Amino acid sequence: MSNQDLALTEGTWQPACCSPLVREPLSAELSAELSRLFKAMGDPVRLRLLSLIASHAGGEACVCDLTGVFDLTGPTISHHLKVLREAGLISGERRGTWVYYRVEPDALRRLSDVLVPDQAPAVGA
Amino acid sequence: MSNQDLALTEGTWQPACCSPLVREPLSAELSAELSRLFKAMGDPVRLRLLSLIASHAGGEACVCDLTGVFDLTGPTISHHLKVLREAGLISGERRGTWVYYRVEPDALRRLSDVLVPDQAPAVGA
Repeated sequence: MSNQDLALTEGTWQPACCSPLVREPLSAELSAELSRLFKAMGDPVRLRLLSLIASHAGGEACVCDLTGVFDLTGPTISHHLKVLREAGLISGERRGTWVYYRVEPDALRRLSDVLVPDQAPAVGA
Repeated sequence: MSNQDLALTEGTWQPACCSPLVREPLSAELSAELSRLFKAMGDPVRLRLLSLIASHAGGEACVCDLTGVFDLTGPTISHHLKVLREAGLISGERRGTWVYYRVEPDALRRLSDVLVPDQAPAVGA
């Protein structure tokens, strides 16, 4: 009996947006899609940038808030922000002089959903 | 007031094994450590392999269970398994002819903990 069968037999598993990878194999398509997000986070500067943006007051940050944290040039920071943006992990909005970045919560949720080892039963399931 | 201040003021936030990246900025050290795991998952074949192993009957799989799924040679599959293993996402145990791989749940949990957008308050916090 597979893990998936067990979960179904117990009647507690409700699919979230994605099939958690411990319940059933990811399809080739979903693997390709999600691995692009993981790849963008697979760099220490980008992961830290993502965290700095996500935890910044108001949930958004501009390059001016981020450059002082790293011993890196502005263009390097901008490059990493572009990679995060192209992966769909953050979005940016220009207001006046600066572009303000915020995390795309749906992207993080998709990754989280697929990683959670034991998902709590859905209420009313 | 930052998100972190708010969380602390509300008295609901308890650190899990890792600080969720939406609560406070990841340190340079933790970013470096976690980004290595994300990087290993940032490839469609490796992510799918991880999922195939995690969801396989008994929670473990040998190369013999995995090669038929991909249009790739055995050595290529073995290379990807080695990357996952060196990152600490899977472990392998030789039994007879085959090495049996299983997912390291702590590694997945660390990644999940850091991604969960809204963590439930700890009981008794």
